[in-house]
Amino acid sequence: MSVFTPVSESQLAGWLKRYSLGALVKLEPIAAGIENTNYFVTTAQGAYVLTLFEKLTAKELPFYLNLMAHLARHGIPCPAPIADLDDQYLGELNGKPAALVTRLPGKSVMKPGRGECAQLGALLARMHLAGRSYPGFLENPRGPRWWKETAPRVRPFLDAGRQALLDAEMAFQGLHRFPDLPRGPVHGDLFRDNALFDAGRLSAVFDYYFAGVDVLLFDVAVCANDWCLVDAARDRRFDPELVNAFLSEYAAVRPFTPAEREAWPTLLRAAALRFWLSRLYDFHLPRPGELVHAHDPEHFREILALRASPGFAAPWAG
Amino acid sequence: MSVFTPVSESQLAGWLKRYSLGALVKLEPIAAGIENTNYFVTTAQGAYVLTLFEKLTAKELPFYLNLMAHLARHGIPCPAPIADLDDQYLGELNGKPAALVTRLPGKSVMKPGRGECAQLGALLARMHLAGRSYPGFLENPRGPRWWKETAPRVRPFLDAGRQALLDAEMAFQGLHRFPDLPRGPVHGDLFRDNALFDAGRLSAVFDYYFAGVDVLLFDVAVCANDWCLVDAARDRRFDPELVNAFLSEYAAVRPFTPAEREAWPTLLRAAALRFWLSRLYDFHLPRPGELVHAHDPEHFREILALRASPGFAAPWAG
Repeated sequence: MSVFTPVSESQLAGWLKRYSLGALVKLEPIAAGIENTNYFVTTAQGAYVLTLFEKLTAKELPFYLNLMAHLARHGIPCPAPIADLDDQYLGELNGKPAALVTRLPGKSVMKPGRGECAQLGALLARMHLAGRSYPGFLENPRGPRWWKETAPRVRPFLDAGRQALLDAEMAFQGLHRFPDLPRGPVHGDLFRDNALFDAGRLSAVFDYYFAGVDVLLFDVAVCANDWCLVDAARDRRFDPELVNAFLSEYAAVRPFTPAEREAWPTLLRAAALRFWLSRLYDFHLPRPGELVHAHDPEHFREILALRASPGFAAPWAG
Repeated sequence: MSVFTPVSESQLAGWLKRYSLGALVKLEPIAAGIENTNYFVTTAQGAYVLTLFEKLTAKELPFYLNLMAHLARHGIPCPAPIADLDDQYLGELNGKPAALVTRLPGKSVMKPGRGECAQLGALLARMHLAGRSYPGFLENPRGPRWWKETAPRVRPFLDAGRQALLDAEMAFQGLHRFPDLPRGPVHGDLFRDNALFDAGRLSAVFDYYFAGVDVLLFDVAVCANDWCLVDAARDRRFDPELVNAFLSEYAAVRPFTPAEREAWPTLLRAAALRFWLSRLYDFHLPRPGELVHAHDPEHFREILALRASPGFAAPWAG
């Protein structure tokens, strides 16, 4: 259950008077999501998602909401925050920071093929180009600084083999920082369930609440590690056709630099490490109410082990 | 024909590289419109309208484009300008100021019923509330100042009876200015052909290029004079059911003030005068290429005469 802060119809109806969206028609809780309270909201005007932020504060949230607004007005199909009558994206509802964003059509495709991966590559590159003019800054909240804080906290829960893998990877990543790679706002969590397809077209990319400024290639690696596998449940090696479609279409919009080519194998490992750590953390140190949604950390341990193995040849565009 | 400045596919394909909308798929000229050059543009990302501005300048255009962006992010279904990679809404194409806006779904309803008029009323009021926080300012370009410039220019083309009507109305309007009525950005031209309905729902309000800051009630009068007639072609009196639906739904969102109630009959005449004048101007003093689209000025002469006749009782909400 992911409604941490319940909202009643009458509470929302009153709150909606601060917007120019017309009267409330329907309010439905959304079960998915482990970080925030989300509801589908239908008004006389249209369909929206209401989010009550459970962890993020009114200090961090402008980065996210303004980023979504920025990308949306550049034509990126991401949720567009709705401004209230005081021209603010961020309000407060039942004691929590709260915002309304547009609800986009479509469904997630959990077994993407060549076409979906190709569309994702092109869209991710367009998103990165559009993000370049975004003036906001927030360090990737799940970047190297967070890894260093988190690794010692989850390490005691691991067996000796896993501890060795974690120690080795932390040491390896510590040798690489890539100050020369193109940077900008990254989504940071663009898994298959954070994208929607409608009639075969990539119609939405959402859940920007792990976004931050980082090397753009980190985003590419996060996507590749989730979208382009032979079989996400059984064989976490890359499917050459999927990963080539993804990378080629990305590069057609934003060509990779030689430095990015060189950093790619390391970034694939970094992206795996980031999710292994967060899943270990959520699994072993859950917040109350979070447990049912905790993902299996082993999935990303295996992805990391595969990408870090001596025989691994990182796939590349073309 | 309303393409004053032709754009080729290869010209547009090159220009689109300044945006994050993907490659050009289709380019179609739009025949309607008498002020600007418009094309439907389809890209890998979605459907847009390209406008090359033939009269408006880069000095006036930010008011319009920022207003549309403002309203769109408040949930008003109006075209949203797309920002380019330099984060600008306004570019230049083939020597003209040019912009891309989202293309909204739906079709115009030229014989609106009670339901359409009710939806229009609610949306217009929501648009006016959302516009209150818009910081831009541009005087209504077809307001009293423009009437005073234009009346003497078209007067010589009129017969004695029409000259008398024009003189009387200019004198009457000169006695009323309404500094105390609620003001804000008005659309100023929200005729039936500037709205779209999709599956019975008001899905778009567009063509904001006559917008400006004026008394909000002017917008209400423009709409009533176009949407709420017994028969737009034959009987320009108000249909009581339509006008009541329109005004009641407006007032349910933004209640009228007593001063607005009092000013209403005068504003209905002002709104008729504005369009009689502009149609006279376009008819008798057309730009080259404009003639085919010039509307019959007599339609608004008759509306004005009806609203100004001694026996006229202005309809009101409820």
